[in-house]
Amino acid sequence: MIKVGIVGGTGYTGSELLRLLVRHEQVDIKAVTSRSDAGTGVAEFHPGLRGEIDLALTTPEDARLADCDLVFFATPNGTAMHEAGGLLEAGTRVIDLAADFRLKDLGVWQHWYGMTHAAPTLVEEAVYGLPEVNREAIARARLVANPGCYPTAVTLGLLPLLEAGLVDASRLIADVKSGVSGAGRKPSTALLMAECGESFKAYSLGGHRHQPEICENLKQAVGVDVGLTFVPHLVPMVRGIEASLYATLQRSGVDVDLQTLFEDRYRAEPFVDVLPSGCSVETRSVRGTNLCRLSVLEPLGAGVVVVQSVIDNLVKGAAGQAVQNMNIMFGWDEATGLALSALAP
Amino acid sequence: MIKVGIVGGTGYTGSELLRLLVRHEQVDIKAVTSRSDAGTGVAEFHPGLRGEIDLALTTPEDARLADCDLVFFATPNGTAMHEAGGLLEAGTRVIDLAADFRLKDLGVWQHWYGMTHAAPTLVEEAVYGLPEVNREAIARARLVANPGCYPTAVTLGLLPLLEAGLVDASRLIADVKSGVSGAGRKPSTALLMAECGESFKAYSLGGHRHQPEICENLKQAVGVDVGLTFVPHLVPMVRGIEASLYATLQRSGVDVDLQTLFEDRYRAEPFVDVLPSGCSVETRSVRGTNLCRLSVLEPLGAGVVVVQSVIDNLVKGAAGQAVQNMNIMFGWDEATGLALSALAP
Amino acid sequence: MIKVGIVGGTGYTGSELLRLLVRHEQVDIKAVTSRSDAGTGVAEFHPGLRGEIDLALTTPEDARLADCDLVFFATPNGTAMHEAGGLLEAGTRVIDLAADFRLKDLGVWQHWYGMTHAAPTLVEEAVYGLPEVNREAIARARLVANPGCYPTAVTLGLLPLLEAGLVDASRLIADVKSGVSGAGRKPSTALLMAECGESFKAYSLGGHRHQPEICENLKQAVGVDVGLTFVPHLVPMVRGIEASLYATLQRSGVDVDLQTLFEDRYRAEPFVDVLPSGCSVETRSVRGTNLCRLSVLEPLGAGVVVVQSVIDNLVKGAAGQAVQNMNIMFGWDEATGLALSALAP
Amino acid sequence: MIKVGIVGGTGYTGSELLRLLVRHEQVDIKAVTSRSDAGTGVAEFHPGLRGEIDLALTTPEDARLADCDLVFFATPNGTAMHEAGGLLEAGTRVIDLAADFRLKDLGVWQHWYGMTHAAPTLVEEAVYGLPEVNREAIARARLVANPGCYPTAVTLGLLPLLEAGLVDASRLIADVKSGVSGAGRKPSTALLMAECGESFKAYSLGGHRHQPEICENLKQAVGVDVGLTFVPHLVPMVRGIEASLYATLQRSGVDVDLQTLFEDRYRAEPFVDVLPSGCSVETRSVRGTNLCRLSVLEPLGAGVVVVQSVIDNLVKGAAGQAVQNMNIMFGWDEATGLALSALAP
Repeated sequence: MIKVGIVGGTGYTGSELLRLLVRHEQVDIKAVTSRSDAGTGVAEFHPGLRGEIDLALTTPEDARLADCDLVFFATPNGTAMHEAGGLLEAGTRVIDLAADFRLKDLGVWQHWYGMTHAAPTLVEEAVYGLPEVNREAIARARLVANPGCYPTAVTLGLLPLLEAGLVDASRLIADVKSGVSGAGRKPSTALLMAECGESFKAYSLGGHRHQPEICENLKQAVGVDVGLTFVPHLVPMVRGIEASLYATLQRSGVDVDLQTLFEDRYRAEPFVDVLPSGCSVETRSVRGTNLCRLSVLEPLGAGVVVVQSVIDNLVKGAAGQAVQNMNIMFGWDEATGLALSALAP
Repeated sequence: MIKVGIVGGTGYTGSELLRLLVRHEQVDIKAVTSRSDAGTGVAEFHPGLRGEIDLALTTPEDARLADCDLVFFATPNGTAMHEAGGLLEAGTRVIDLAADFRLKDLGVWQHWYGMTHAAPTLVEEAVYGLPEVNREAIARARLVANPGCYPTAVTLGLLPLLEAGLVDASRLIADVKSGVSGAGRKPSTALLMAECGESFKAYSLGGHRHQPEICENLKQAVGVDVGLTFVPHLVPMVRGIEASLYATLQRSGVDVDLQTLFEDRYRAEPFVDVLPSGCSVETRSVRGTNLCRLSVLEPLGAGVVVVQSVIDNLVKGAAGQAVQNMNIMFGWDEATGLALSALAP
Repeated sequence: MIKVGIVGGTGYTGSELLRLLVRHEQVDIKAVTSRSDAGTGVAEFHPGLRGEIDLALTTPEDARLADCDLVFFATPNGTAMHEAGGLLEAGTRVIDLAADFRLKDLGVWQHWYGMTHAAPTLVEEAVYGLPEVNREAIARARLVANPGCYPTAVTLGLLPLLEAGLVDASRLIADVKSGVSGAGRKPSTALLMAECGESFKAYSLGGHRHQPEICENLKQAVGVDVGLTFVPHLVPMVRGIEASLYATLQRSGVDVDLQTLFEDRYRAEPFVDVLPSGCSVETRSVRGTNLCRLSVLEPLGAGVVVVQSVIDNLVKGAAGQAVQNMNIMFGWDEATGLALSALAP
Repeated sequence: MIKVGIVGGTGYTGSELLRLLVRHEQVDIKAVTSRSDAGTGVAEFHPGLRGEIDLALTTPEDARLADCDLVFFATPNGTAMHEAGGLLEAGTRVIDLAADFRLKDLGVWQHWYGMTHAAPTLVEEAVYGLPEVNREAIARARLVANPGCYPTAVTLGLLPLLEAGLVDASRLIADVKSGVSGAGRKPSTALLMAECGESFKAYSLGGHRHQPEICENLKQAVGVDVGLTFVPHLVPMVRGIEASLYATLQRSGVDVDLQTLFEDRYRAEPFVDVLPSGCSVETRSVRGTNLCRLSVLEPLGAGVVVVQSVIDNLVKGAAGQAVQNMNIMFGWDEATGLALSALAP
């Protein structure tokens, strides 16, 4: 049983963390912070948690976070970089669900996030929390940078192809689609249901912060530079990400069984599921779970591999992956607290 | 650990039962039947269950249901009444999620369901499985008639008022709304997303089978005849029921604290939650859970009580309540396998 | 051809007015105002209007509204009451789509809208713009108060019953449901798709401003005090209102043909359509049109009349009704510019 | 004024044709057929058309279609090929909204549609009804093959690039998304709202009939063989198609202004609208209209062109384009009856 704090308990990743942690047998939630709603009961703020948790939201100052064994930051970008250092010094481990520690290249980070980084040395130390790539480093880490939602879906879909050197890494395409909860809980006209219901569109045409995150992490994983066209779309639904990934086979003469390649790569992974050949993934089949489900095929034998990858953006794309990282960091069964069946329909 | 069979494993109540039972520590699922899809893997049919269950669908004949301790019928109306008798004789207990045993008045049943009942003596024996009313009888029952989704939401909302004799029982109004999964998984033009998406309508204007079920069961619970105007509507969402209930106070001079009345009535109930005064229930706050959440008020002090009641139609309105009934029948903690937090957003 | 100005062209009622007026053969749009977006092209702001209109948004000051024959206010409550007087003096007629002139009782208005009214004498003069009740007064009016969306749906549904004295006017119930566009285009957490998608709830439990509007106008129409329980709900869709209305028959011995009563009342009305007996209205059957569709029945002959009324909240509930009022005020065919078929599916 | 017949008046393309034709000033609808619902009023079947049309559905035999000047087939694939010949002989012109005459290569057609073609000579004669490519041939045609929905969106998006020879035609990718009305009105489990609401998925992984249609018609238009990876997805909304198209620039040294290229290509087209640089198309901006809206960019200057194309699948993707073709065939203004503003929100 460890003592856990959550900084930022009112957004969607914070509430999803709470949904998972209130039932986690190894976790005692000591503090949930919110500057704007301090004093309000957690379950008053999130009525779906009534009866599950007795705490009130507190200010970060009152939360005594340094007494915790682990603190999750479910805060806007640019918050954890100011707080993590002090906690680490006090012996508290940290998982940041925002982007502060995801990119090793500070120049790239500062370009995309529009801030000067407050803790460059911690960027060096931080481990990118994608267990399917960095499990051992995560186990030893003091500071984990929990991956973004799109990067999780895209990286898991492209990894087997790139690791095998099967495709042209310079011409990858990721056509990705997300439900609206991925954009968070801040008031916004663009995310009103009257604006995005019954409609479909691409967004961030000028570039999206998850593109450099994917490129950097794929490069670290497979050692080659990656060229990625990344186009995100908004789907009129609440939860779920689907990534359709396109890559050009470069060894078309070679006989590769894509299905076997993917099944072999992920056979031992508790949270990656490769569907049988010919099956199509759908986001509802992972709703509420920590799973990434994948399908792979080469349509009409035309030399283009199509991978489809689905996750629940709030679980494997955020809070669930953070819990998975915690489980690894503390040496527990990786699936502790994550035994969740998909809510379908 | 008991042996359990599920008759009808391909519809929505069947798949929801599976979602709950694969993680129920006291249950060993021995057979899941489907006449039309026998031979197909359960998890092949329901991809959301991949990795959770290894069985294939079987015909009822091959399922050896009489070897089970308990059989759930998640079948169309008119199925369980033919099969339950044999199972009960073999010592197998039965929970029917359809309507075969819900109405004691056979004439009313035959009028609304358009069939002759095949097992009138079992109708007499069956216990209506609403734990908040019949918990002790359920514990002893061989045969439980699991309530309909609307009757669960409406009955729990009206009970405190009627038990206290506070309202005119002859002029009750239930304006109820359901997500589309309540209508089942059969092919149908009316339930295509292109027909019912982005639209709202009432249906079954000529009368709905759940109206007599509510009236009969309220009468049994409180001993007075009930007059109920019952109007169901279809909401463009997948899961969830909301019932807005209207009743006229008959003792307007008397000082009644409606909030306290409801809280007292349900204080000991593990799956009924009365919201604080002034709070509004919403269906997502019970999504995926076995809870019924209620609010009560008398708007503008005008003598009309408004109760709002929400459930997840597939959980407290079907499969979850069936599991709750099983827990009671076998003497386990009533919440076993039902520790589920709401999936919100 | 008249010169028309629109004050407030960036909200949903403003954009819907534009959709209708760009094709109205008698209208020349001279100015569309927005303080915050002045300078932006109207079609740049509303991409759906590209190619339909060449104007840019202007400040109200630059708009020279007093040169117009008619000005529509599609502004927040409390705006038109400051501006209407000057325009009327200049000979410009005014239709206010907000609530400033809807209630004759200033005390009630000030209670519900939380402001002191700036133009009490104009309140007296204003005509409530429900053509089915006030057509002749509208024709002569300088200032029209365009009805609220719920009041339109509810009033048209109850009028025939109350005019005929058939029901108990002191115990009316309106269970009303609206798509999210009814709440406007302001940034808001509660109206994010992640908050209100895939969920259903009641709101404004403490009372809603449209309740006194309905009561006052029904009283003016039929001369009796009206007691109304009014409960609004939010539907996870963009457009459409459905009102389910419940009234107790008081002359149950008398033989009344409800269907004929409704058909007779609305036979001459171009925008009210009574469905044949047994048919159920649905919001999509009026999507994009200025119609109110109604059904009426007495379920199971139990003495309670159920009326169902659907409108498109942005058309008959706002901009379309405003155009209908304009047509009446200027003596044109009432349907000019409103020949719109429903967009279904 | 011409006499028009519609074969197949109960599906979505049939009802959308009716929505457009009831207000078309040059059209007198003489017959609407449905074998299964003959005798039912058209407006009884489509309540959204109440008051717009007085006809009843008839059998094709009773419809005296050969008396019409033009007959639309809004029928399943494989119907028009049996009937068109007789009508053409009688001097009646024909527009087929299904796929019978879309592919010139009979072998390919028979492979994808699984039937032997009944009228090969008519296939030769038929003109592919994409006005932006074949306007002059359409004007003279007796028989027009109205394009599929996806082919319309994809072809219009890729044409400028291919006509200019700018991109590698052998490696095109179309990641396309459609609302559920594209799948028609037949009862189906997969298209129940409970199955496809709140979820997103790809479908037809093994290949989709629209892929060869696009390839054949692009080849005819630009004279080169086209290699296309085509992946369709189902969006939880009713109407709308978005196509995200990816192509590799082959003359990266050459200075091409993509924005100007697209604007020039479509400047004279009444129903193609190229958005200003940096703007993102959304399906709601064309809802209910006959428009195709396009955006084009080369993200991060990386050599991959991304085109986004949106249409309303039932209008420019079906019935609206059929009306546009009719207008061309009869020499009327091409926009007659198609002056429709987008319904947004």
